[in-house]
Amino acid sequence: MTSEVVAPVQLDFSSPDFSAQLDSLLAWESVSNDSVQEQVKTIIAQVRKQKDQAVIEYTCRFDRRHLSSMSDLTLGADRLQQALDNIQPEQHSALEAAASRIREYHQHQHQQQSSWNYRESDGTLLGQQVTPMDRVGLYVPGGRASYPSSVLMNAIPASVAGVPEVVMVVPAPDGELNELVLAAAAIAGVSRVFTIGGAQAVAALAYGTQTIPKVDKIIGPGNIYVATAKREVFGQVGIDMIAGPSEILVVCDGQSNPDWIAMDLFSQAEHDEDAQAILISPDRVFLGQVQKSINRLLPTMERKDIIATSLNKRGALISVPDLESACELVNRIAPEHLELSVEEPEAWLPKIRHAGAIFMGRYTAEALGDYCAGPNHVLPTSGTARFSSPLGVYDFQKRSSVIQFSAEGASEMGKVASVLARGESLTAHARSAEYRIKD
Amino acid sequence: MTSEVVAPVQLDFSSPDFSAQLDSLLAWESVSNDSVQEQVKTIIAQVRKQKDQAVIEYTCRFDRRHLSSMSDLTLGADRLQQALDNIQPEQHSALEAAASRIREYHQHQHQQQSSWNYRESDGTLLGQQVTPMDRVGLYVPGGRASYPSSVLMNAIPASVAGVPEVVMVVPAPDGELNELVLAAAAIAGVSRVFTIGGAQAVAALAYGTQTIPKVDKIIGPGNIYVATAKREVFGQVGIDMIAGPSEILVVCDGQSNPDWIAMDLFSQAEHDEDAQAILISPDRVFLGQVQKSINRLLPTMERKDIIATSLNKRGALISVPDLESACELVNRIAPEHLELSVEEPEAWLPKIRHAGAIFMGRYTAEALGDYCAGPNHVLPTSGTARFSSPLGVYDFQKRSSVIQFSAEGASEMGKVASVLARGESLTAHARSAEYRIKD
Repeated sequence: MTSEVVAPVQLDFSSPDFSAQLDSLLAWESVSNDSVQEQVKTIIAQVRKQKDQAVIEYTCRFDRRHLSSMSDLTLGADRLQQALDNIQPEQHSALEAAASRIREYHQHQHQQQSSWNYRESDGTLLGQQVTPMDRVGLYVPGGRASYPSSVLMNAIPASVAGVPEVVMVVPAPDGELNELVLAAAAIAGVSRVFTIGGAQAVAALAYGTQTIPKVDKIIGPGNIYVATAKREVFGQVGIDMIAGPSEILVVCDGQSNPDWIAMDLFSQAEHDEDAQAILISPDRVFLGQVQKSINRLLPTMERKDIIATSLNKRGALISVPDLESACELVNRIAPEHLELSVEEPEAWLPKIRHAGAIFMGRYTAEALGDYCAGPNHVLPTSGTARFSSPLGVYDFQKRSSVIQFSAEGASEMGKVASVLARGESLTAHARSAEYRIKD
Repeated sequence: MTSEVVAPVQLDFSSPDFSAQLDSLLAWESVSNDSVQEQVKTIIAQVRKQKDQAVIEYTCRFDRRHLSSMSDLTLGADRLQQALDNIQPEQHSALEAAASRIREYHQHQHQQQSSWNYRESDGTLLGQQVTPMDRVGLYVPGGRASYPSSVLMNAIPASVAGVPEVVMVVPAPDGELNELVLAAAAIAGVSRVFTIGGAQAVAALAYGTQTIPKVDKIIGPGNIYVATAKREVFGQVGIDMIAGPSEILVVCDGQSNPDWIAMDLFSQAEHDEDAQAILISPDRVFLGQVQKSINRLLPTMERKDIIATSLNKRGALISVPDLESACELVNRIAPEHLELSVEEPEAWLPKIRHAGAIFMGRYTAEALGDYCAGPNHVLPTSGTARFSSPLGVYDFQKRSSVIQFSAEGASEMGKVASVLARGESLTAHARSAEYRIKD
């Protein structure tokens, strides 16, 4: 049932308790749960020991399936192609259009990530070699949160990076699969799909079984069991960030259509009840107009209950003295999605230090970025844009330092290394370096 | 006491059980310990609640100190400068020489990490903005493992990346501090030092206290409490990889001086009893010569007991049919340090896919890389070079996607986004995109 009143909290930047109010608005912590952690540890230990057999048992139990062999859990390229052939032509071409733009953007990104080196005057060579990972595992949730766009966004950067094999896991509770997800996998170049999920899927990808190959990195969102399992296997394999609820921060000068802004806020709020949609404006009248648009548009929305709960619980309309203060707030919040719905957004861009993705100008709806702008929609949430980046080609590559000393260089540097190694009481280090000092 | 016999295990690539032998040689897993995890969780909770007061209490208890105020735990720039003034002039200039080369290499790396964008024919702009983090925390262990070189290697890339503030924590058990470590901090541009350690230091950096500022990322090695705390706060802040024991893999064509190679193996083995030193060669006679050098040189080493234990427990001499097979093994092992002590190492470089740092040619002792070659000595261990990279400037930067649609672009892409959003039942997304479609 829709809440009677939808009223995102109204905050004023100039109020004395604004800072504390903002902290409380932004506060988010995923519920750490010892019972979940224990279950996950048990599942991982079982999968490491019993391999395929454990995966089959857990899948039958948790996904209510009836099967006895891994081949029942494996989908090959033909099955993915079949899904692609069977979806609506309009959906097929929209997926292809999105994939093509995502591929192009990530190819630009790839060009920024090449090997390099330089030579010093004595002939010593220093540099860095960039190489792709061998194999990556993509986790795709089943059920409500199963999104074909996520398959494109996760798999295409890996493929552009040159990863030879992208393996996907997606649970099929009661045997049900989302055909759009499989079609997206076909377009994105996924090699194989296993219809498994939960901590057992994460464990299988991290350690390998007779059937499921061990991967180098596991990416993709999941529920609390999946997130806990990813944290647990971190180090054994690489993982992406563990995502919190989605958020949008809209900065508007008051000159955009209030309906557009209200709908942009809805587009985050509809994700789930913990999603966060915040609007900042120096124009108080405009904030009131958006509140009116919210009231008018909400009853027309399919997911109005989720939107209402999310806006009432975590939404906000924030009044600021000027756009300068708005930018200061942006950097403090470090939002996943930032819309700069202002005249001349490029003038404000250099002031933005922390944000996952920046949507500039009144036409750049955040929803375009979710599907087909080209940049990745997997973005740092909950303020983690302070220290992390959108998913990208660089997440599927790694670097090796390259060092080649000339005889002269080794002799000179051997003297420096010798002093420092002896200062650390590491005499084998010192003597190894000293062997290369010329008489 | 030195072991009577120092005999790294001898393996043969062509033997039928080689693969299993190699797996067992490489097997390493940090001991997960529920009791440590419980203690760490308690410490973090206390520091979040009691802040400075908890940090002071834990420091008094664990580091056997007697103090009542955070000011007793804080070292400013003057104290660091004093350390720099008081160390031996030879050590001072060696530290400066190393810092200067490390800075230069990382400046080259920095040039690879710039913002970029491109414009499409309808005026739509896509790109990526690269920015430094605001504040980074560097953990430096106290006692035996306290290395000035690590301070340079961790702090300089952050400073080159443009991070305005690098905060360092280093425990002072019984009040003792390493002056070389403080001198290195002065050279590397560390802003402030707090003489605290353990999980309490990690918690203070992750959440902030009245005195200790909250950072965006925590880097640097530590014991099991520190590693567990870093894993626990991962997500609240960024962290670097959790390091395993150090390793070296030497590939030699048999033409290097066996004493040099033996000493290179020692230089890893002396780190600790779990360190791993492996030599691969197609020349069996040479493997025998290195074994003889090991026996002859070992008694002359200061850390002979550690070296002997490490080589007996985790060392190996591996015979391969040819250098091609050696490269195959390298990629399977994904070593932290790789020495290609061969003629024409550049011919083999393109075949190396997974290694933290590659030391090419007979003069490039790994020890030079530990101190002053320029590239970072913080490298992925335990096979994690399959998916991770040396510490670098990129670890202190993050990227924001930049998207600015023209009216035409938004109209065209709005149609694609609408189809895909409706396919995912996200109608607010669809309607937000549809608003931007022209009539």
